[in-house]
Amino acid sequence: MATVRLWSDAEAEADPRVRAVFADIRATRGSDFINNFWRGLANDPTLLERTWSSLKVVMGPGTLDPLTKELVYIAVSIANGCPYCIHSHTAAARAKGLTPEQHGEFLAIVGMANQTNALVNGMQIPVDPAFRVEEGS
Amino acid sequence: MATVRLWSDAEAEADPRVRAVFADIRATRGSDFINNFWRGLANDPTLLERTWSSLKVVMGPGTLDPLTKELVYIAVSIANGCPYCIHSHTAAARAKGLTPEQHGEFLAIVGMANQTNALVNGMQIPVDPAFRVEEGS
Amino acid sequence: MATVRLWSDAEAEADPRVRAVFADIRATRGSDFINNFWRGLANDPTLLERTWSSLKVVMGPGTLDPLTKELVYIAVSIANGCPYCIHSHTAAARAKGLTPEQHGEFLAIVGMANQTNALVNGMQIPVDPAFRVEEGS
Amino acid sequence: MATVRLWSDAEAEADPRVRAVFADIRATRGSDFINNFWRGLANDPTLLERTWSSLKVVMGPGTLDPLTKELVYIAVSIANGCPYCIHSHTAAARAKGLTPEQHGEFLAIVGMANQTNALVNGMQIPVDPAFRVEEGS
Amino acid sequence: MATVRLWSDAEAEADPRVRAVFADIRATRGSDFINNFWRGLANDPTLLERTWSSLKVVMGPGTLDPLTKELVYIAVSIANGCPYCIHSHTAAARAKGLTPEQHGEFLAIVGMANQTNALVNGMQIPVDPAFRVEEGS
Amino acid sequence: MATVRLWSDAEAEADPRVRAVFADIRATRGSDFINNFWRGLANDPTLLERTWSSLKVVMGPGTLDPLTKELVYIAVSIANGCPYCIHSHTAAARAKGLTPEQHGEFLAIVGMANQTNALVNGMQIPVDPAFRVEEGS
Repeated sequence: MATVRLWSDAEAEADPRVRAVFADIRATRGSDFINNFWRGLANDPTLLERTWSSLKVVMGPGTLDPLTKELVYIAVSIANGCPYCIHSHTAAARAKGLTPEQHGEFLAIVGMANQTNALVNGMQIPVDPAFRVEEGS
Repeated sequence: MATVRLWSDAEAEADPRVRAVFADIRATRGSDFINNFWRGLANDPTLLERTWSSLKVVMGPGTLDPLTKELVYIAVSIANGCPYCIHSHTAAARAKGLTPEQHGEFLAIVGMANQTNALVNGMQIPVDPAFRVEEGS
Repeated sequence: MATVRLWSDAEAEADPRVRAVFADIRATRGSDFINNFWRGLANDPTLLERTWSSLKVVMGPGTLDPLTKELVYIAVSIANGCPYCIHSHTAAARAKGLTPEQHGEFLAIVGMANQTNALVNGMQIPVDPAFRVEEGS
Repeated sequence: MATVRLWSDAEAEADPRVRAVFADIRATRGSDFINNFWRGLANDPTLLERTWSSLKVVMGPGTLDPLTKELVYIAVSIANGCPYCIHSHTAAARAKGLTPEQHGEFLAIVGMANQTNALVNGMQIPVDPAFRVEEGS
Repeated sequence: MATVRLWSDAEAEADPRVRAVFADIRATRGSDFINNFWRGLANDPTLLERTWSSLKVVMGPGTLDPLTKELVYIAVSIANGCPYCIHSHTAAARAKGLTPEQHGEFLAIVGMANQTNALVNGMQIPVDPAFRVEEGS
Repeated sequence: MATVRLWSDAEAEADPRVRAVFADIRATRGSDFINNFWRGLANDPTLLERTWSSLKVVMGPGTLDPLTKELVYIAVSIANGCPYCIHSHTAAARAKGLTPEQHGEFLAIVGMANQTNALVNGMQIPVDPAFRVEEGS
């Protein structure tokens, strides 16, 4: 169904770079589960390494809380129409405490944003000067 | 520059439905400023009323904090490529306390999500059974 | 397969707000069929109520004919890549009289628009002054 | 501002293929005005010829009325975020009789479609069997 | 599963216009295989003819090599989220010599472009004067 | 005009991490010119460092030629509607030898891909079994 082969655990074990990344994913997440995304990326160990090391930093501890980070991720994935990403990050958000009430509220915001994006684009509204950050200011 | 006329305050005053919405926007936000989006929507008072009443509920108090709501809104607007919406909601997020550190972290998540959305779509990764919510379950 | 549970008729009956919306959908459409979209939205009765009441107005009688409204809806859904929406609104358009000839002509326009959108974006064509509606004019 | 040069009338006159297309655009539209899109495409006469000959057929007489065709075109352009295309086709729709009431109603549909596209994608609603057209049926 | 019927070979044989296009596809590609896209377009012979004749020219011999053309095609299809198109053009690229190494490198570029597109849109970076092609220059 | 401040050379000099990245961009490109994208990213040195180090690898020497890489980048940027990205990578492609003939041919492919993406989505064409790569195969 994919355009690339999804690597099995046995194949991953046989490639030192893939094995190392899979081991770090398991250690970081505290779970033995490796989802299909990483099994597809394993076809290109360089891309696998770079993607995981970036994701680990971006979604790791910072100034935004973990649930907010997942919601931002899902919002982008909905707007881009990526079914896999919506499924995987909604599951991740649930694991981080997303309640059904918050999920409904989140979907309402995403729906509203898509609606007003379209209204703004349709009317080609010019940016209010008050919203601009001046260069050098 | 817009595809519709942007209503002045004088014009808004002369239409009872537009006047009422503008008054409610000002009261809700505690500011006299009415941004161009609403001045464009004023051309269709029914659409203006429905959009404002929905936005007021969706972005009002709920189970997600106000800053998280704005970040979700901006994330959608970036993915959809709506310059006006990005400007207006980034300004709103700043008004709600977004720090430069949080803004950088937020942009990094949006960038990462767009990147992995593309990688997933390019590889056409099938959804892991573990991510599915079964109907009726 | 969905990220939320799809409500059965029995569940809908047990929630007064969901029951009322489902009853109104059935009465408005003159059909007992409730499609999955509404069964998913039932998880958030507030969002269900607002979405249905807006959709009922927007797609109801107005100055554009019902078939034109459906075609506009499908066009957006194609550009956004929403398979469910394309299926449901193409079915709705057929029910409102869309002929195979009109469907082919419609698809040709959508294809053409996507093509010229890309050509325009690729060349970054500046808007002709003749197309602008001036503020205040 | 563009990524290609926009051809002047004098340049177009000097190239027999561009001159012929520009003459046909003017004759078909009954207007001397050639908008920037065609002046950009003139850099590749083959692409210019193919685009114009396709557009002339697709937007010409058929089973859908001319205003409906323009609305479908604008809907796609809004969803794709093509400012030039939104401006040029909104101007064309006005020239074909679009009233302010119809424009407002149209924008409401486009906004609604974008909203429900997002809600459907966010919930990953499975297509109802009733909506499917079977192969061979 | 489709919104239109997919034509069988027997049906295509019975329509002279569809038969002619299918014959030309087979002759051009040196293969008896007609993929589903063309079987769907067969419902509108005019659209089928125009699409095939354009595609044949655009993807035929020119100044860009055949593999580069396929990669550009896949890149657009990923960004637009068209699963069918990603599958069919990845298969075509493989047939034209795409190696697994090149595929990984290609996916890395597409991912990177989507990421920086989002970062640029999120920051609303103004175009550097050095990048502009002046009109008439 | 941006939502963040664009750093001047003097400011960049004063921050060791930004100074180091700007120096590496200049050395890698053999040019003193730093475009606005990097001046915006400078607000978040961590994001600046990661973005530049990834881009340097992805767009650096590999199995695809430099011009093909730029064309893939522009194709994504057109589909996503990122004006800045289209301008900057079209300028980069020209610097790497893109001829006007190749540019026209490239735009024709991007336009064609967007058109057939829409036709495929509109018809919801099922993937031909022949295009699938089986897991484990």
